[in-house]
Amino acid sequence: MLVKGQHYRSVWMEGGTVKMIDQRLLPHEFRIVSLPTYRETAQAIKTMTVRGAGAIGAAAGFAMAQAALEAGETSFRSLIDEAAQTVRATRPTAHDLFFAVDRVREAALGAATVAQDKAAAVEMANRLADDNAKAGEQIGLAGLSLLRSGMRLLTHCNAGWLAFVDWGSALAPVYQAQRRGLEVFVYATETRPRSQGAKLTAWELQQAGIAHAVIADTAVGSYVQRGQIDAVIVGADRIAANGDVANKIGTYTIALLAKHHGVPFYVAAPRSTVDPKTPTGASIVIEERSEEEVTWVSGRAPDGTLTRVQVTPPGSPAGNPAFDVTPASLVTAFITEAGVLEPCPEALDQFARHGRREL
Amino acid sequence: MLVKGQHYRSVWMEGGTVKMIDQRLLPHEFRIVSLPTYRETAQAIKTMTVRGAGAIGAAAGFAMAQAALEAGETSFRSLIDEAAQTVRATRPTAHDLFFAVDRVREAALGAATVAQDKAAAVEMANRLADDNAKAGEQIGLAGLSLLRSGMRLLTHCNAGWLAFVDWGSALAPVYQAQRRGLEVFVYATETRPRSQGAKLTAWELQQAGIAHAVIADTAVGSYVQRGQIDAVIVGADRIAANGDVANKIGTYTIALLAKHHGVPFYVAAPRSTVDPKTPTGASIVIEERSEEEVTWVSGRAPDGTLTRVQVTPPGSPAGNPAFDVTPASLVTAFITEAGVLEPCPEALDQFARHGRREL
Repeated sequence: MLVKGQHYRSVWMEGGTVKMIDQRLLPHEFRIVSLPTYRETAQAIKTMTVRGAGAIGAAAGFAMAQAALEAGETSFRSLIDEAAQTVRATRPTAHDLFFAVDRVREAALGAATVAQDKAAAVEMANRLADDNAKAGEQIGLAGLSLLRSGMRLLTHCNAGWLAFVDWGSALAPVYQAQRRGLEVFVYATETRPRSQGAKLTAWELQQAGIAHAVIADTAVGSYVQRGQIDAVIVGADRIAANGDVANKIGTYTIALLAKHHGVPFYVAAPRSTVDPKTPTGASIVIEERSEEEVTWVSGRAPDGTLTRVQVTPPGSPAGNPAFDVTPASLVTAFITEAGVLEPCPEALDQFARHGRREL
Repeated sequence: MLVKGQHYRSVWMEGGTVKMIDQRLLPHEFRIVSLPTYRETAQAIKTMTVRGAGAIGAAAGFAMAQAALEAGETSFRSLIDEAAQTVRATRPTAHDLFFAVDRVREAALGAATVAQDKAAAVEMANRLADDNAKAGEQIGLAGLSLLRSGMRLLTHCNAGWLAFVDWGSALAPVYQAQRRGLEVFVYATETRPRSQGAKLTAWELQQAGIAHAVIADTAVGSYVQRGQIDAVIVGADRIAANGDVANKIGTYTIALLAKHHGVPFYVAAPRSTVDPKTPTGASIVIEERSEEEVTWVSGRAPDGTLTRVQVTPPGSPAGNPAFDVTPASLVTAFITEAGVLEPCPEALDQFARHGRREL
């Protein structure tokens, strides 16, 4: 997508260096960071310099490719395995991460020579990133069938192009709609504690010139209740085989509100987010993150400096689950690169195995 | 309640001066402001130096008493009416405010001489404040019947003693429980956009030594879903004749979650919050507040200064409804100074008219 008129992906590789937009500084500063080693790339995933299921997956793939490039002939396999372990340990919830690590690891261990292994790893990492961008574009086209001009959409967190390599999942249909002259209005929830909606989604929409408003997470009920939301579109961090969805904390609540008020609730996600090995949401590990994400808020002070402020009294504890699970029964449909799928195990199974729905 | 071992009310009058805790500075600074004129007191209500239905009501009563003290013999009635108009215009949603303005205005216009009128106004304002403190104490006793040791309660916004003259509504049962040695744990929602839960409720609970944790508004669904909340207690800004409840934005969502998961949802409020003239929630005016409350967050910077940070990209619009309406069907019971009431029009009518339930 365009930033000040120039095309960017959220993460990419140049030679052996991984480059990414530092998402911790947005919307106040646009900066590209360069990560010369796989350990630094893994660290960038952990510190959420890059976040969002698709972008994490691509970064994880690139980190594995970096590991292959860094590894010597004698200890090649052990370094690859060590890197896989390191990258897997960065974030526990996003299925894309494990998907990418496995794919690049397989590619790196499959060729006849170490030189070929290195090339195969880089090729696979780039292919995964391209696939992710392409999936976003196609998710956008699939989602178009659900939109009409004048619609007021609600989205949660950031499942735009920053969360992917390009295009995004939840916002991809909005970008496709815009290219066709459909006018949609997007309500972006703030998405505390990390405020990805207020920071990243608002920034994306502003850069793209799409009409939008940020609302506090507490306000969703009021907007839905007063009939001001025509549809909800969110992304997903992991979709279980039965259609249960792990996504940013707060998603479940929005899904319940939508169901109660008869508002369609769509989950937009590529194939890499579906995890056939997770039978239901009950077996998804929910990451508990640091208390400081709740007790402090970062942003730009009136003097322009980027800083953070403590909201709570020092010493008050906080709870901080990063994701919740939305049961499949609250999902109206999945928007995927293979089209709009019903939230049933059969459709998801076909999609996960063959990348398409049963025709 | 005690602050560092000394007893305070949230708002009181000394001579012709209204004094109140500056709630905009908490939890980082404890400061008392002095307001020598009714206009300054009205302004303090408007700027939310004082907030919370009960505390607003008491402050409004004191402002009217100040107006009576300030008024000359010749224009006494017109200044009282002008003050009533000014005070009524500060905040549109809290019924306590209108209740107090009417009561003190009547008292100020009912005696034989202006001197008697002034005395009657001051007496009425003090009586309303005392009544509010007493109501909180009794709400606490009534709520005790619903609590047991080891319970995990969730509360939203701040309906503690800072929101009243003393004791509070939603937190009053917690304070009474503590005095009887019952141990309850309180989850306080942050309550964006103004973060009264993270700032005020956490501070109150910390001062009182009650075990608690702050959670993001987005996390409520996860806690309720995982069975970690035994009951919800919130306050109210206005209760309609049919039992619909206007309260801080986000309350409706929590009520829906509680209902869906079979968690009791209690609304604690004194008689002054019930408005028999409002037939249902549909006729409650919902205050739309400034965008800046959503786009900026205030708190304490790492260097100790109180400041604020902008979260959104400059130029992104925001929506900011301050309250929502929870239908009576989601309320398990009202906790009042007259005991625990069923959420039915008959019980509320008895209570509003006679200050007690039908026996």
